[in-house]
Amino acid sequence: MHSTGLGLVTPQQMHFAEPLALTSGAQLAGYTLAYETYGTLNADASNAVLVCHALNASHHVAGVWADGSRGWWDNLVGPGKPLDTNRFFVIGINNPGSCFGSTGPMHDNPATGQPYGADFPVVTVEDWVDAQARLVQRLGITQLAAVVGGSLGGMQALAWTLRHPQAVRHCVAVATAPNLSAQNIAFNEVARRAIVTDPDFHGGHYYAHGVVPRRGLTVARMVGHITYLSDDAMGAKFGRQLQDAICGELAFSTQDVEFQIESYLRHQGDKFSRYFDANTYLLITRALDYFDPARAHGGDLAAAFAVARAQKFLLVSFTTDWRFAPARSREIVKALVDNRIDVSYAEIDAPQGHDAFLLDDARYHGVMRAYFERVAAAQAGG
Amino acid sequence: MHSTGLGLVTPQQMHFAEPLALTSGAQLAGYTLAYETYGTLNADASNAVLVCHALNASHHVAGVWADGSRGWWDNLVGPGKPLDTNRFFVIGINNPGSCFGSTGPMHDNPATGQPYGADFPVVTVEDWVDAQARLVQRLGITQLAAVVGGSLGGMQALAWTLRHPQAVRHCVAVATAPNLSAQNIAFNEVARRAIVTDPDFHGGHYYAHGVVPRRGLTVARMVGHITYLSDDAMGAKFGRQLQDAICGELAFSTQDVEFQIESYLRHQGDKFSRYFDANTYLLITRALDYFDPARAHGGDLAAAFAVARAQKFLLVSFTTDWRFAPARSREIVKALVDNRIDVSYAEIDAPQGHDAFLLDDARYHGVMRAYFERVAAAQAGG
Repeated sequence: MHSTGLGLVTPQQMHFAEPLALTSGAQLAGYTLAYETYGTLNADASNAVLVCHALNASHHVAGVWADGSRGWWDNLVGPGKPLDTNRFFVIGINNPGSCFGSTGPMHDNPATGQPYGADFPVVTVEDWVDAQARLVQRLGITQLAAVVGGSLGGMQALAWTLRHPQAVRHCVAVATAPNLSAQNIAFNEVARRAIVTDPDFHGGHYYAHGVVPRRGLTVARMVGHITYLSDDAMGAKFGRQLQDAICGELAFSTQDVEFQIESYLRHQGDKFSRYFDANTYLLITRALDYFDPARAHGGDLAAAFAVARAQKFLLVSFTTDWRFAPARSREIVKALVDNRIDVSYAEIDAPQGHDAFLLDDARYHGVMRAYFERVAAAQAGG
Repeated sequence: MHSTGLGLVTPQQMHFAEPLALTSGAQLAGYTLAYETYGTLNADASNAVLVCHALNASHHVAGVWADGSRGWWDNLVGPGKPLDTNRFFVIGINNPGSCFGSTGPMHDNPATGQPYGADFPVVTVEDWVDAQARLVQRLGITQLAAVVGGSLGGMQALAWTLRHPQAVRHCVAVATAPNLSAQNIAFNEVARRAIVTDPDFHGGHYYAHGVVPRRGLTVARMVGHITYLSDDAMGAKFGRQLQDAICGELAFSTQDVEFQIESYLRHQGDKFSRYFDANTYLLITRALDYFDPARAHGGDLAAAFAVARAQKFLLVSFTTDWRFAPARSREIVKALVDNRIDVSYAEIDAPQGHDAFLLDDARYHGVMRAYFERVAAAQAGG
């Protein structure tokens, strides 16, 4: 099925004057959310699908901005695509604390008139969901046809069903986990230490110093990037190929690039450090660490899902994802089954590791298409 | 079998006036090696076993120094232990470029009268083996009963059989690989970037500035440490336990320690950064990257092992080691079998990941003991 995509899309902003009460007990003062919508909301506002973003993505889910930048899930969302904007009204929202348009650490703290910096309140997945719920409500939607997300976005999709059970008919959680493992937290902590110990971090108030902790952000991104790819995918793409592939000679240097994988990682880290905010990186990795719906139930995930009222869940995992391995998705499936909640689970045999959730894999997109067709059919029928 | 160990041991030093020709084409000028020996060399010098060390270890393999520090493989090496010093004369040598007594980047470059720093020549596994061979020869040993090592030490054991085929009767390579995967190199590169981009690195000449790139070294060690442990072992030991286990309350902070795994990793990184040299870290990770005996044979590992003349090899791997997974050891086994070389292979079901090679696991030590008993028996018979 061919599709030309959504074409040009335009981000919007919505301001919220009322503070947001946060999990930590703190409040986020009046704030703005950047968002985008694709497709048309139907008359009874029953065809809305919210797409939640992961660490370094944003409200720009699909279509193309005037500057040419394409939405991060454009291969999935658009007219005729698996999440079909001819049928659904799709919403992307940049989470507060992020750095792509919504209120974040680089914006002024109304209490001081200075950028929040490291004083931006610590936000959780549940806080983001609450912020999203306000925006969704403001759009005139009382119940989402579906909430969808991958990785950290999948955690938000799950949290919607627990936090706003009546407001979600379908939950689609891809390449996600019910919480981070010790190893997951460990990688996040390495990234945070790299940022925080960069002398240009200045305790999180680097904006005032006119600098950015780029060295730390670069290392943080490099280590993160390794965990997004499978060992096999990295081997297939780079293997032990030398950077100087023409001569094929070793340079015998500890500081120069010798292998292609080094060049690739340095480039990824460098690029990231030019557009991503360091305080946002700290906030988002912490939100990942904290997510753990079973915690309030003594570790019993099934007990946590007892409040869920969504008609059905779809869980998708990828065989080579070692960041959020299939076993983590199966924990969620089990908790849903224990509650006699309808759930489909697809384990996709894909080589790319965690990043597979962003890629255009035929089997994966086939599962997503089929699921959204059912959502649409239930829509038309009900 | 009970054993009280070797007790007090004393390191020795040996100076080599003749330069060492290196793989890179450069030379290492006159240099000193720190080493230790345990047990007694027999009359025909046929009972010597060389133990090669990995990244952050040294010649201090077994016994206890006057300051109380115990050898890194003391659970394996000693009277009555699997590598029995009542039978064998065991040698540990600190590799050149390291920071525990042998000539390294912190020592004066005779060409300048200043510390080598980043100008210390890039050394390879083969260079280390050549340096070790000189020392072994100087001790009056023309053939080692066995050469043994784990991880990077295992690579040295393998390299001995290729570089000095007649000088090795048995090769014992534990938790090792025939080369680093792209993912392995990637983790090394993250560590190196953390060190090199630390402003206190000063291009590798930090000694002259009276500083040490501790921030970078700390991050380097943290990321390395994650790869030494299995996901399961980390989960079992730390899980999602909070640092403040008494109150069990979240602190909601991006910079303070919240989970026990964070505290553990920070401690490991901090401790390491106080004793390990940053230039040595660069050199040793690079030696790991470069090791690839199949490279000179168009990637054909079996062709590389065609020169090996050792009587027998023992390869040992650990099921949960994801740094050097069992599949990597099996590649070596296959290359040996293809050459009709006698090889035993043990895959130990151990939960601890790569670090298992340093631990006192009964099945693992049972395999090692049995193998060295055979080496000793062949010794007595031949």
